[in-house]
Amino acid sequence: MRSLAQNAELALLLEVTSTPKPGNVDRRHEYDDLRFEHFLAGAVGARPGLDVAADGGPVGRAFERSVEGMAEQKGGNTQFGALLLVTPLVATAASGALTPERASDVVSGTTVEDAAEFYRAFEHVDVAVDDPPEDLDALDVRRGSDAIPELEARDLTLADVMGLSADVDGVAAEWVDGFSRCFEAAAAIERRDGPVPDRAAHVFLELLADEVDTFVVTRNDRETAEEVTRRAQAVLDGEEDAADLADEFVERDVNPGTTADIIAAALFVALERGLQV
Amino acid sequence: MRSLAQNAELALLLEVTSTPKPGNVDRRHEYDDLRFEHFLAGAVGARPGLDVAADGGPVGRAFERSVEGMAEQKGGNTQFGALLLVTPLVATAASGALTPERASDVVSGTTVEDAAEFYRAFEHVDVAVDDPPEDLDALDVRRGSDAIPELEARDLTLADVMGLSADVDGVAAEWVDGFSRCFEAAAAIERRDGPVPDRAAHVFLELLADEVDTFVVTRNDRETAEEVTRRAQAVLDGEEDAADLADEFVERDVNPGTTADIIAAALFVALERGLQV
Repeated sequence: MRSLAQNAELALLLEVTSTPKPGNVDRRHEYDDLRFEHFLAGAVGARPGLDVAADGGPVGRAFERSVEGMAEQKGGNTQFGALLLVTPLVATAASGALTPERASDVVSGTTVEDAAEFYRAFEHVDVAVDDPPEDLDALDVRRGSDAIPELEARDLTLADVMGLSADVDGVAAEWVDGFSRCFEAAAAIERRDGPVPDRAAHVFLELLADEVDTFVVTRNDRETAEEVTRRAQAVLDGEEDAADLADEFVERDVNPGTTADIIAAALFVALERGLQV
Repeated sequence: MRSLAQNAELALLLEVTSTPKPGNVDRRHEYDDLRFEHFLAGAVGARPGLDVAADGGPVGRAFERSVEGMAEQKGGNTQFGALLLVTPLVATAASGALTPERASDVVSGTTVEDAAEFYRAFEHVDVAVDDPPEDLDALDVRRGSDAIPELEARDLTLADVMGLSADVDGVAAEWVDGFSRCFEAAAAIERRDGPVPDRAAHVFLELLADEVDTFVVTRNDRETAEEVTRRAQAVLDGEEDAADLADEFVERDVNPGTTADIIAAALFVALERGLQV
């Protein structure tokens, strides 16, 4: 039987394999400087950090270690957001039942030191983020460990930090909402038939049609993110072709990465619940 | 820095990603019952066995454990041959320099118990093999652990067992020949430019054009294996298209798996020598 960390790693691999996921790197789509194999190396590299979470270590350290290992490839940021979702879910499963309630407990249990590790993780890789509001400038994640004194002065845990950006970041929103979309997507993947990557690609479109992808809002703009949502719905309605849309979004550099992160987390949950590959 | 076991796992993943490798499962080609995701799960599942080799454990046990984990997916045999090459190479790197000479020393150091573990590995998964010559019927690998008393009676080490089939099995031939094609293919991958999967796919064709693939001889016949060799050369000569040939071989169920096994081992050697992904 695969271990928690093995299922987490396999979830990352299955996510990037699932195709077409319009705009994402997948087994049939990539960018010149962000390629499929970078995600393979990212998933393998993340393993020591995933092991920390599986062994009951602090979530912040598990995340920082996983990002450090993930970053050891030439593509840059491959799975930062996915690991930010998967790591607490591994920690949840390591300590008991993998449920939204227990995942919320893991979030509530995070500390200021977890927050510090989260900031250190930004030193390993460039991550596209919004400018923070002016009063939070001292907590800009791009400051990396330089922001730690401010975290300590304000006594902010990792849960608090996530709460600060939950309205503009779909990954942070999962932290404050019991990973609800991750668990719902897991159930949707489990309900479908056929090869796992095909199921995940379909559920990706459902998520994309359901809510704007905050990574697209950040890297492109809200108008583009809303277009992405409409066109994902058009694919589900049979009005557009998913493969054509994937080609177009890659061409335009429109990469709904937050939705991919949620699919990775959902695949982990589904594998833990017994999904067979 | 990735560990030995991480590089071994990544090598398995990069092998199956590299495309087109005519007849193999790769990121763009698969069989209905043997799919890309089965190889992902196989690589992740093999990890505990690879860890045994990396930690200096016996090669036979490392192999048996890696196959046991590999088999935990619905596709059946994905990386049996690749693991039979990668496991001793991990053991070699774990104990010193990764050279053909030292790999031969690791082979020479195998025991009857290693041979017994090799036979046990056949109980985890169905592997396509030739019927043995009549005088070796008691050592048919398909007997699994039932053959162990015979191994013990004849005092056969794993190196001895490999020697018995080196003339009909390209993986066993590597064991008796210092993994020469693995090391040569590693050097060829290192010499090329561009994305690692593209390099590996090219070197795959070079290997395929150079020698008949014994897995094709076993599963199809020698005539087909010789055709594969000729047509791989035709691709290298610009007379055939690799992608078209890949489609045709998958359609005909002609899968040069031994050559893929050597590419996986070569990728491991190249990663250990510093190949960047």
